[in-house]
Formats: sequence, structure tokens, C-alpha cells
Amino acid sequence: MSSGTSEPPSIITLTTDFGLSDSYVAQIKGVILGINPWARIVDISHGILPQQILQATFITQTAWPCFPPRTVHLAVVDPGVGSERRLIALQTPEAIFVGPDNGVLSAALPDGVRPNEPRRIALPGDVKAFEISNRRYMREEVSKTFHGRDVFAPAAAYLTLGVGPEELGAPVQEVMVLPPIQSVKQPDGTFDAKVIHIDRFGNVISDIRSADLPAGRFSVRAGDRNVPGPFATYAEMDGLGALVGSSGYLEIAVPNGNAARLLHIQIGAPLRLQPNG
Amino acid sequence: MSSGTSEPPSIITLTTDFGLSDSYVAQIKGVILGINPWARIVDISHGILPQQILQATFITQTAWPCFPPRTVHLAVVDPGVGSERRLIALQTPEAIFVGPDNGVLSAALPDGVRPNEPRRIALPGDVKAFEISNRRYMREEVSKTFHGRDVFAPAAAYLTLGVGPEELGAPVQEVMVLPPIQSVKQPDGTFDAKVIHIDRFGNVISDIRSADLPAGRFSVRAGDRNVPGPFATYAEMDGLGALVGSSGYLEIAVPNGNAARLLHIQIGAPLRLQPNG
Amino acid sequence: MSSGTSEPPSIITLTTDFGLSDSYVAQIKGVILGINPWARIVDISHGILPQQILQATFITQTAWPCFPPRTVHLAVVDPGVGSERRLIALQTPEAIFVGPDNGVLSAALPDGVRPNEPRRIALPGDVKAFEISNRRYMREEVSKTFHGRDVFAPAAAYLTLGVGPEELGAPVQEVMVLPPIQSVKQPDGTFDAKVIHIDRFGNVISDIRSADLPAGRFSVRAGDRNVPGPFATYAEMDGLGALVGSSGYLEIAVPNGNAARLLHIQIGAPLRLQPNG
Repeated sequence: MSSGTSEPPSIITLTTDFGLSDSYVAQIKGVILGINPWARIVDISHGILPQQILQATFITQTAWPCFPPRTVHLAVVDPGVGSERRLIALQTPEAIFVGPDNGVLSAALPDGVRPNEPRRIALPGDVKAFEISNRRYMREEVSKTFHGRDVFAPAAAYLTLGVGPEELGAPVQEVMVLPPIQSVKQPDGTFDAKVIHIDRFGNVISDIRSADLPAGRFSVRAGDRNVPGPFATYAEMDGLGALVGSSGYLEIAVPNGNAARLLHIQIGAPLRLQPNG
Repeated sequence: MSSGTSEPPSIITLTTDFGLSDSYVAQIKGVILGINPWARIVDISHGILPQQILQATFITQTAWPCFPPRTVHLAVVDPGVGSERRLIALQTPEAIFVGPDNGVLSAALPDGVRPNEPRRIALPGDVKAFEISNRRYMREEVSKTFHGRDVFAPAAAYLTLGVGPEELGAPVQEVMVLPPIQSVKQPDGTFDAKVIHIDRFGNVISDIRSADLPAGRFSVRAGDRNVPGPFATYAEMDGLGALVGSSGYLEIAVPNGNAARLLHIQIGAPLRLQPNG
Repeated sequence: MSSGTSEPPSIITLTTDFGLSDSYVAQIKGVILGINPWARIVDISHGILPQQILQATFITQTAWPCFPPRTVHLAVVDPGVGSERRLIALQTPEAIFVGPDNGVLSAALPDGVRPNEPRRIALPGDVKAFEISNRRYMREEVSKTFHGRDVFAPAAAYLTLGVGPEELGAPVQEVMVLPPIQSVKQPDGTFDAKVIHIDRFGNVISDIRSADLPAGRFSVRAGDRNVPGPFATYAEMDGLGALVGSSGYLEIAVPNGNAARLLHIQIGAPLRLQPNG
């Protein structure tokens, strides 16, 4: 049993496209622990497909709300490393997000403030962004190809030591933000949706948010199948079915099977939801 | 060097079929750290094949005895999530195990008390089981599809904070238990065994326990090959050989090669051990 | 925010060929935490290809300099487990390295002292090696097939508790060391180099060290392509290009693509660098 009398350790989460076989993730961890040896580092995922900013945004968005307030979330999917894209820290009422200004930090923002297409937007009043430019909070030698290790990791570590995000660099007025992950209801009550993620179980996760779902039963056109819904659990389906998954999006599953394989469907594929009757 | 003067942090291990690319494991960790920020979380494996309860049992069973007493072991392989299967905490003299009542917690029990086929059994006197039903130790909102995050993770975290398992819910008299992983010696001294696991090296792990092995040399029929044994180490084989692996089961290996690939053999395949001479 | 008033926890890193699906890594972690519950364990990589000592050396070598001084680095790629190869602890001015005496600990030594071919060498004056033979610092029962768990893990844990490496066993005069990862400049200014690693992005990492590069532009023959260099960042290439990667070696990359796949090239393949003009 833990005593719990001292202050709890600060948490830093990591989301990257680095995989786990190379040593890139370990290099980041070594740098963090060299600055704050008490930091608690938690991997969200290093299995983001190379350079897939949207996937990283989805994965981060589903995970960060489970963490305690003031956690520092580091998201490094950074195809433009070394180019002119900025490195930023975003402070929201819930947490601090650190990463490149290429849209990956959209995960920090509520759907309501995200634009209809990827573009720079002014931040809502309760969110502050700062460029990470103060050399004092970087590694002594900064490579041109691995800012995750040389800039983002030390910035995250110093943030957990009490350095304020405003000390990292100048305030940033506009940041690159991706559209919210959501499908819009058509005037006739249907949704022209798409597959945003396929998880390890083959569950096909759509961009239809549970809050937007119609009352009553519906069916989802996926591949060449009509999938009924909603179900409450995987166990009550007796074949392909649609249900609200644990992250609040409608997903298609099949008990003890792989729905994506059954439907021959991939990320980005169209889905059409139609209310019954 | 660590001072070691304060109480050691509590350990929670995780065994799941969630993989590491999705954010499910991180969501569990976030929830745990939100309740007990001092908990030490250790991954046993998230590479269990989807819904393979027996594999999860084997993996957990080989790992938990290496951990300090009173570790909390969370095993979430839960195809019946949201159905009527119970969620339980099992307290043994060595540790606490948390998971669905679908057999996966069999790993906690000694071979001698496990039944000949999967069924509910009464627990031995030194093991206590409790249903996890007290809403006070769950997340405020409990999804129907992710009890790992919403019920098991908080239960495990509260257990490390000094909450007794009996506070989680009512005592459970019978739990679902799988047969022990063991092959039984036939009257003629042979074993009709099977492959229970193939590890990353291609070592073919059988269900023959070292304690049951005959004295003297033997050979194992595997695929269309007769494999000699026992050897003491991989290094002393000059081809396929059988030896007692680090978890106490007989395994077939080949130095610097992949025995499973060489034998064209898979999990579940039959093996026949015959004493020599 | 962390208080930072107590002594920082000791760090133990792990590099193995065990993968993450089996429970071998977790068994090592359980043993470490049973001895030093405060130890901070960080995975460098468990994705080393089975028995690939050179790959383990490269991965460890790129990671350990990012960790704080006095970190204990455990490298277990050990095809000779149970044979006569020794188990050693190597103390350098920067850190302690624990592993089999089969060359994998070469990662601890500067290029300048490493031999031209794999062989036992006397250690430089500031490096001390000790055999791990004192049963007191092993698990009670030592298997013949898993010294990572039964010998190396407890040794590493005791080292973080203040046990000196000289208490583990007798001094070792000569240890097996691999050649440095470097390509030698030919009299005509070219390098006959090779591919030493391909990372998750498909970046093709050579054994040409940045310090050895010629001034000015050059081209690298790789597969049937001539690749120009040097570039400073991935973003400024408009096709295949060579640049100094984050670990100080020349690598071939392609923006938003997979250079290794494009070049049909694998680890060990020859590369030829020729200065321009």
C-alpha cells in the first residue's frame, strides 16, 4: 500500500509513430528522466502509422480524458521535422499538450471550436498556446531530425517541474487545427459517414458520435452489407451489429470475430446510416 | 541509489488482448493513475490473441509468481463484456487477481484444485472471491463495452489504496476455472500432450510439466519428426531438442533457429512423448 | 508537480530479443521490483531480432547516452544461455552495463577502443568488468535457460540498491568486443559502407559516421540508385536523399515514404559513398 503523503508524481504521456523496435521512444524517455527523474511516463501509442496525423489525433483524443488533470501529453507525429512548422505547447483547462503545430494537437480542443477543414484558427479564450523556442529548455545540442528528443521531451519534462508554458517562448495566436471527428446528419435523417479507425479486434469505428444518433433502430451500409443497430453490448449480437463504442463513436463489430475483415473494409471507407422505417 | 525509507509503491500488472496500437491500455493506465498516482503499473502482455482466454491464463500464470506478494494482477480478456458474466476479485495467499469470471483468473489457482474440464468450482479455503459491484469503486459513468477501463481499472487502483476486496461487493462461492495446463502420463509411460504456446523464438511449449517427466531419455513426436530429450540448455543441442523451459514445461527448440517453423506446428497440435528403451 | 526533495529513483533499462507478447519481459520486471520496488524500469527495445547481437548493440548504443549517469543498462540477447559464456557487469565512467559476455556490451565502449574484428580485448583503464557469480545476488533457483530473469535481473536490481559491481564476482580482464560501427574512408575518398539498420520509417541507416563525412556534396550508391546528399532535414528533400540522422550516422530517407522499400534494400547491403566532383 502506498503512503500517499507526498505530492503525486507528474505524468507525461507519449503518442508517436516511432514504433517500439527502434530506440527513439527510449531516447525520449531518457531525456525526460534526466530532467525530471520523478516523472511518470505513460505510453499512449507508438503504433501510429508513419506520418498519420489524423490517426494520432484520434488516438490521443480517446485517451487523454482518462488521465488526471494537468497531465502533459506529448504527441510527436512530425513529418515536417526541421522545416518551418512551429513547435508548440497548448495549455487547456484540463491539461498541457506538446507537439508540432501541424494539427496533431487538435485532440486537445473540443469539437465545437474545430473548423470545417484543416486550417489555422484563433484559440478559444481558455486555451493558451506558446511557441517552444527558449533554448534554455532544450537539449544542449538540437538535431535537425529528432525534435521529439531534443525539444519536445525536455519541454515536457520542464513543464512537470513547474516551468510555466509561457516561459517556453512567445504566445502563439493561431494554431493549425483539424476538423472534429464527426459525421453530419443530412436533412433526410441519414449520415454519410466514414471509417476513422479499425482497432485490434477488427471493430470498425465510424465518425458518427453517439450524441448525434437518431432515436430508435437504424441500419448502417458498410461494404455490401446492411448492419443493424444499435446494440448495447457485443454479447447480444448474433452477427454483425452496430453499437456505441467506449470512446463515444458508433462502431461495427461481430462477436468473437473481426468485423473489418468480414466487411473487407478499411480506414476511410464510406458508411451510410439510415434510420429504420 | 534509492533511499528505500518510505513504503514501496504498490504494483498493478496488466494482461489483455488489447494490443499496443490502440489507446485502450493507456485509458486503463490513466484511470488507475487518477485514483492512485503512486501505483506502479507493469505490462505483462497485451499481445494475447483476441478473446483467447486460455492463452491469457498461460501468460499470466508464467508471470505472476515473479512479482512481489500482494501485487494486483489485472487480466482483461473479456469477450462477454456487458453480458451477465460477473466481474470478480480473487484474493489468494500470494496476490489479488481482478478480471471477468470467465476462467481467465484460473492462473491464480494451483494445478491441484483446478477441475478436469472448464466449470464453476468452489474455491479452496485460502482463496476468497468477491463480485465487483459496489458503484463507489467504479468510474462515474460505466460503459457497456469497456469494463477494463470503467470497472476493473478503478477496482485494482482502490485495492492498492487499502480498500479490501470484500468492500468491492458480495462474496462469490463458485468461480469459473479452467483445467490445469498439464498432460497426464498414460499407463504405458507415454504422454499424449499438446502445444500450448509458441514463443517469439519459435520455441514450442508443451503441456508436459517438468515434475511429471520420466527419468532418463525420451523422444517427442512432433509433426513428422522425433525430437530427442532432455537437454539442459539450448547451446548443447545440435538440432531440434526438447528441454525444460523457464516456466517449468517441456519445450522443443533448435539453437539459433525457429523450431515451430521447422516443424510446421501450431498451438493445439498434438505431441507424443515416449520414454526411450 | 513533483517535490524533488528525496533522492531520485534509480533507472534500469532493458534491451532484449524477447518481444512483448510473451511474459519473459514481465518476469524480469517482477524480479527487479521484488528486490528494488523503487527502481524505474525503462524499455529500450524488445524488438531485437532473435539472437541478433549486432542489432542489440546498435540499438543500445543509440539509446544509453540519453539516460542519466549511473543508469544500469541490461542487455539480454543471449543465444548461448546456459553454456560457458560468462555473465558480466561492466562499469564505465557513465553507466553500468549488465549482460552476457558475447559482444552485446560493446555498446558501452567508445569506438576508439573497439577492435577491428570481434574478439576478447583488455579493457581501457576507466572501465571495470566483473563476472556475475555470487549466488547471493541471484534468484534462489537459477534456471538453465533464462539467466535474464534469474541472474541479470537480480544483479541489476542489487546494483541500484548500492551493491558495488565488484561484489557480484571476480574481476574480468578481457571481454568480447565487436568492431565499432563505422565505415573507413578509402585512399580515393570513397567509403565502402553498409546498411546497419532500417527503422520503422524505412530510413536506411549506414555505418558512415557524421564525423567522417567529406566536406561538400556527395552521392551514395544504394541498390541501383545514386542518392544525393547531404540534406539537413527530411522536409527539404524532394525524393531520396542522404542526411545525418539523429544518432550520428548517415542515413537514406525519402519524405513521407519508405526508402528501404523504394531501394529494395536490407540490413547488411553494401553502400558506396563518393564525394562529388
